[in-house]
Amino acid sequence: MNATLDETSVFTPRWGADGLITAVTVDAASGAVLMVAHMNADALAATLATNEAHYWSRSRRELWHKGATSGAIQRVVEIRVDCDQDCLLLMVEPAGPACHTGRINCFYRRLGNNGLEPVTERSA
Amino acid sequence: MNATLDETSVFTPRWGADGLITAVTVDAASGAVLMVAHMNADALAATLATNEAHYWSRSRRELWHKGATSGAIQRVVEIRVDCDQDCLLLMVEPAGPACHTGRINCFYRRLGNNGLEPVTERSA
Repeated sequence: MNATLDETSVFTPRWGADGLITAVTVDAASGAVLMVAHMNADALAATLATNEAHYWSRSRRELWHKGATSGAIQRVVEIRVDCDQDCLLLMVEPAGPACHTGRINCFYRRLGNNGLEPVTERSA
Repeated sequence: MNATLDETSVFTPRWGADGLITAVTVDAASGAVLMVAHMNADALAATLATNEAHYWSRSRRELWHKGATSGAIQRVVEIRVDCDQDCLLLMVEPAGPACHTGRINCFYRRLGNNGLEPVTERSA
């Protein structure tokens, strides 16, 4: 582990070979994980410039302003970085569902004894 | 988006080209994000077999039984999968700090106006 990364105050995002960094997006109020996506440098810059979450869509291969079409904008309250600076944590106030299925978050299934089963809780 | 993945009850982890899937590990009690790591098929199998989190260490290129040396075992309470099945959410009971720095979680710095600054809250 690189000690210059884990104790520094210098923000040094470690982009992967594909130019992306993983972003875990949580509800700023509850801390619940909403979704996991990726950012390239442009997406991070756009997020910082607007305080609204932007990602890189790997499937569409384009900058993705979350909520631009659905209305489910994610206002960014805080961005954290992990010890080795290869992952970001976005704390957001979501204006709508994070998941394209219309669910509040993307983690609506748990692994059970017979495959996946729905998560039944208030937050899902 | 693949509809056969996002509504099925069949667990179909989508391994990346590198054979890995992203795992976000949260405290089962609080929901707070502890760390983000990766699993290969062996790590997932070992996790399911033991109910203790195993990852693939990309830096050491070896199976990583979390806490095997530090004692900070993560007992897995539940595993969730996201809509397109390319990310896992591990809900764990940690026996110690998730971070190699000794901190409870890896996200102990936030992006401020002058670079990174310490997160000062009970959970960090």
